[in-house]
Amino acid sequence: MSILIAITGRDNTKLITKLQERLPSTLIEQWPDCKNVNNVDFVLAWKAPESMWLQLPNLKAVSSFGAGIDSIDLTLLPEHVEVVRIVDEQLAEDMAEYVLTHVLAQKLRLKEYYIKQTQQAWQPKRAHNNKHVGILGFGELGKTCAKKLINNGFKVSAWARNNKTADNVSMFYGADGLELMLPDIDYLVCLLPLTKATKGIINYSMLAKLPPRAVVINAARGGHVVEQDLLDALNNESLRGATLDVFEHEPLVGSHPYWSHPKITLTPHCAALSDLNSIIEQIVKNIEYLNQGLALNNRVNRMEGY
Amino acid sequence: MSILIAITGRDNTKLITKLQERLPSTLIEQWPDCKNVNNVDFVLAWKAPESMWLQLPNLKAVSSFGAGIDSIDLTLLPEHVEVVRIVDEQLAEDMAEYVLTHVLAQKLRLKEYYIKQTQQAWQPKRAHNNKHVGILGFGELGKTCAKKLINNGFKVSAWARNNKTADNVSMFYGADGLELMLPDIDYLVCLLPLTKATKGIINYSMLAKLPPRAVVINAARGGHVVEQDLLDALNNESLRGATLDVFEHEPLVGSHPYWSHPKITLTPHCAALSDLNSIIEQIVKNIEYLNQGLALNNRVNRMEGY
Repeated sequence: MSILIAITGRDNTKLITKLQERLPSTLIEQWPDCKNVNNVDFVLAWKAPESMWLQLPNLKAVSSFGAGIDSIDLTLLPEHVEVVRIVDEQLAEDMAEYVLTHVLAQKLRLKEYYIKQTQQAWQPKRAHNNKHVGILGFGELGKTCAKKLINNGFKVSAWARNNKTADNVSMFYGADGLELMLPDIDYLVCLLPLTKATKGIINYSMLAKLPPRAVVINAARGGHVVEQDLLDALNNESLRGATLDVFEHEPLVGSHPYWSHPKITLTPHCAALSDLNSIIEQIVKNIEYLNQGLALNNRVNRMEGY
Repeated sequence: MSILIAITGRDNTKLITKLQERLPSTLIEQWPDCKNVNNVDFVLAWKAPESMWLQLPNLKAVSSFGAGIDSIDLTLLPEHVEVVRIVDEQLAEDMAEYVLTHVLAQKLRLKEYYIKQTQQAWQPKRAHNNKHVGILGFGELGKTCAKKLINNGFKVSAWARNNKTADNVSMFYGADGLELMLPDIDYLVCLLPLTKATKGIINYSMLAKLPPRAVVINAARGGHVVEQDLLDALNNESLRGATLDVFEHEPLVGSHPYWSHPKITLTPHCAALSDLNSIIEQIVKNIEYLNQGLALNNRVNRMEGY
């Protein structure tokens, strides 16, 4: 057996060195430098070239190099191939801290004051009183964020596909539930997985249902947002502001209108950065389980896409 | 009896209208328009002209128009004059929210990312891990802030003059205590009253005891900070950053070096803005108590200055 690393847009030297240290007798190769494609049974992937998947006849398992698996086209994988993802508890904590920080930053007008500082403008204004956060997606990340926000005096509603519950969170389900929830939301936080059902979900139709005092915070994937619809809503004053950590194309190109928009707070996909050692432990464990014929950790439901 | 309003640098029309509505049969005048100085027994003051105090022979009580009484020169008041201040519970909550927001903003590098956004620079960096907040001053504000910070996973130490305690807060007292506390602090939050003993306390000597990773957050009074010493520490990289809400002279003049400093986050004295209705209720109550010969609320210890 051998392990293939197919992670594009990133220097993988440190990752491979550390992985090889933990698995000294296993052959670890980096695509496209693969001596024998027949030997590959485990792939660690992020935005791997599509053509690669068709050249690995004995592939048994694929691990995404992240919490999402939207960087892997599942339709290219035979049904028996197991797909797993990274679940880092610290990621959920970091994400919750990012969301709390940016909800508070919007409430206390931090971006407005940063702009005023560059203009030497002394203009005190009361912080916003709004305290109702709506979370789209209520998995591990959504639940951890909800807890932290409630703990800080926010009212939290959440929208999920399945019948999930949590203390002190008002739950909404399906298209009808979304329609009911949106008109009362002050801060809409997107933590959804990117699937066919959620791509472009933050579009004109959703934004029109939010009140003009609302702010959108996207810490999930750029593909959730229809960029022009978001810009239109901000420019029409039907939306107060947006905090964006993720983008359709990353890094965001220099000419993108997001950079200079006074109502957009932009961070460079830094809300929850994985810790390499923690990732490696999870990958090593799953490779060991695969070799022992045991069930892998953090398996993805391929039908649902997360 | 009559009430005199002596609040400078502010439009008091709304305040006087609302106060008169609550006290319809009481004469309320605004300095220097005072028909009979002998009738004045209660003054509501903020940066009142010093000469005024010597012209009120029958003054019984002075209320500061704020939580601090540093805007009143107590040495000009006869000893029998009672001095009271505004204690607004919402103020402590707002202050705690300001402090938490700006500690988190420093931890998650918000100002760095705002600057990078203006430069179209995509440079993700891990948030700081530092979690130790040191609070200078441990009255109502300090205690409320400590609770909120602890509630969000921060380690809190506090420095106070007297022997105060609180759950999960490491307390330090006196000059020796300060010296012990400072070298381990990541975020130094000043919430002290401005007195002779605390004026200029954030100076070269204090800043030199902080580690270079530390950030100073001043939400108390501008007079606590020796401005040039703070600028020197930031420029020498012996201090990572500063968040300043208060200044020696407000509004801050356009030529001040704070405005354009990349390591300074400046807000225009907006951390805790009083609610006018809540202030008026407190003033009315104290005027009623004075008329009835009862002890006033929120009396200041004139020796200690708070």
